[in-house]
Amino acid sequence: MLLSVLYIIGITAEAMTGALSAGRRKMDWFGVILVASATAIGGGTVRDILLGHYPLGWVAHPHFLMITCLAGVLTTWLYKWVIRLRGLFIRLDALGLVVFSIIGTKVAMGMAHHPLICVVSGVVTGVFGGLLRDLICRRTPLVLHEELYASVSAVASGVYLVMIRYAVDDITATIVTILIGYLLRMAAVRFKWCLPSFHLESENSLH
Amino acid sequence: MLLSVLYIIGITAEAMTGALSAGRRKMDWFGVILVASATAIGGGTVRDILLGHYPLGWVAHPHFLMITCLAGVLTTWLYKWVIRLRGLFIRLDALGLVVFSIIGTKVAMGMAHHPLICVVSGVVTGVFGGLLRDLICRRTPLVLHEELYASVSAVASGVYLVMIRYAVDDITATIVTILIGYLLRMAAVRFKWCLPSFHLESENSLH
Amino acid sequence: MLLSVLYIIGITAEAMTGALSAGRRKMDWFGVILVASATAIGGGTVRDILLGHYPLGWVAHPHFLMITCLAGVLTTWLYKWVIRLRGLFIRLDALGLVVFSIIGTKVAMGMAHHPLICVVSGVVTGVFGGLLRDLICRRTPLVLHEELYASVSAVASGVYLVMIRYAVDDITATIVTILIGYLLRMAAVRFKWCLPSFHLESENSLH
Repeated sequence: MLLSVLYIIGITAEAMTGALSAGRRKMDWFGVILVASATAIGGGTVRDILLGHYPLGWVAHPHFLMITCLAGVLTTWLYKWVIRLRGLFIRLDALGLVVFSIIGTKVAMGMAHHPLICVVSGVVTGVFGGLLRDLICRRTPLVLHEELYASVSAVASGVYLVMIRYAVDDITATIVTILIGYLLRMAAVRFKWCLPSFHLESENSLH
Repeated sequence: MLLSVLYIIGITAEAMTGALSAGRRKMDWFGVILVASATAIGGGTVRDILLGHYPLGWVAHPHFLMITCLAGVLTTWLYKWVIRLRGLFIRLDALGLVVFSIIGTKVAMGMAHHPLICVVSGVVTGVFGGLLRDLICRRTPLVLHEELYASVSAVASGVYLVMIRYAVDDITATIVTILIGYLLRMAAVRFKWCLPSFHLESENSLH
Repeated sequence: MLLSVLYIIGITAEAMTGALSAGRRKMDWFGVILVASATAIGGGTVRDILLGHYPLGWVAHPHFLMITCLAGVLTTWLYKWVIRLRGLFIRLDALGLVVFSIIGTKVAMGMAHHPLICVVSGVVTGVFGGLLRDLICRRTPLVLHEELYASVSAVASGVYLVMIRYAVDDITATIVTILIGYLLRMAAVRFKWCLPSFHLESENSLH
C-alpha cells in the first residue's frame, strides 16, 4: 500500500523529468509521451522482459500508463514550475530510485531467483528508465557518469533482500530501505560521491 | 486475407526504405538486411515482446523474414528506382502504417487486453520499426518530429477498435479504417499537419 | 562440456573488450560492468527474448554474470595488458563468435524452429553483444562496416546445422564448425575480406 502510493509519486516525477529531456530535443507530443513513459516505466518493463514476468505491469494496470502520459503532456505547460522546483524533483527522483529498486527486488524474489539476480532486478528497475530516456534522446547516459546512482539502487536492493532473509517484516524492511537509500543518494548528490571511473585514450583501443 | 496481402506489401516497402537508411550510413549487406528487417518487422517484434505474445510473427512464419532480407538486398541495386518512385513509397508507407496498426490492435484484442493497451499495441506495431531504424542508424527519430505519424496510427487503431466493439464485421471495419487512416496520413503529409511540439532550451534542463 | 569451457573463455574475452569501450567513454564502474556484460551476454539475451526462451541463460546461471562483472572490473586495472595482447584478443573474439553462434543455433534447434530461424538465432547470439556495446557507447556499430563478422557467424551456424541434419555426432560437428569459422574469421581479418557495402549520398534519401 505504502509502496503503491510511493510508486505512483515516483513514476509521475520520472515522467515529468523525462518530458523535459524530450523538450530539449524539440520533440512533438508523441515524443514527449514516449520519453516520459520510457523514463517512468521503462525500467520495470525491461526487468519483466528479462525475467519473463508477464503480463508487464502497465499492460495489466493501464492506469499507470495513463498517469505517465498525462504527466508528460502536463509538463509541456508546467515546465517552468518543474524547473523551478529542481530541488524537489531531485528528492522525488531519489525516492523513486529506491522505491523502484525495492519493487524490482520483490518481483525477482517472488520468482525465487538467486540473490544476485534479485539485486540485478532491483538495479534494472531503478536505472534502466533513465538509460532508455538517454538512448532515445541520443545523450551519453547520465547514470554512467554521475554521482552514485546505480550503486544506491544496488545497496537498497541488497539491504531489503538481507532484511527479508532475516525475517524482518515487509513494512519495516521497506521503510528502513527507503530511509537508507534516500539518505545515501541525497548525500551522494550533495557531496558529489562518485564511483571510480575508467578513462582510456581513444588510441589505446582494441576496436 | 486482404490484410495478409497488404501486410506483405507493407513490409516490402518498409524494408526498402530501411535499406536506403542503411545505405546513407554506408553499411554492408548485413547492415542493410538488419536495418531493412528491423524497419519492416521490428514494430511487430517489439509489440509481441511487450505483450508476451510468442512465438513472434517472423519466427513462426520465416518467409516474412525472407521477404524483408530480399527486399533489402534488392534495394542495393534498385535504389535509383526507389528514390525516383518517392511518391509511391510515401503512399505505401502510409498504407503500411495503417495495416500494421490494425494488426497490432487485433493481436492485443485477441489477448483480451484493455482498450488503451490495444491502441498502444497498434501504435507500437505501426511506428517502432521506424524508431528502431533511426536508433540503429543513429538519427534523431523522424517519427518524433515530422507530420502526424504516430497519431495516424493511434486514430486508425481507435477507429478499428470502436467499430469492432459496435459489432461491425471485420472486413468492413478493416476497409473503413484503412481508408480513414490512409487519407489522414496523406493529408498530414500534403498540408504538413504536425502535433504541437515542446521546445526547451538546454540551459533550462533539470538533468 | 568443450562448448561450456569455450563459452566461459568467450564471455570473459568479450567482457574485457567491452570494458575497453566503456573506458573510452570515461564511464564509471557501473558503466564498465554494464557494457562488459552487455557485450558478453547481450547476444544470448536478445536471442532468448526473441525466441521466448526463458529463463535467460544468466538468470538461470548467475555465475556467468559474475564472470562478466569481474572481467569488466579487472580490465580497469589490467587494460594495458589487454591492449598489448591485441592479437590474442582478436583470436579469442573469433573463437567466441563461433562458439556463440553454435550455441545460438543449438537453442533454436532444440525448440524445433525452421532452419532459417536457427541460423538467425546463431547470428543474433554471435553479433548482438557487439551491437549493444556500440549502441550504449554511441558508436556506429562496427559489425556493420568491418571485415566479415556476421557472415562468419551465419556460415558457422549453417555448417553446424547441416552437419547435425546429416547425422554427424555433436562433438565432431562442434569441432569442425569451430575450425572452419575460426579460420574464416582470421582470414577475413588478415586479408580484409568485407561484404559489399551500400553507399548512398544523403541527398538521395527518401526520408
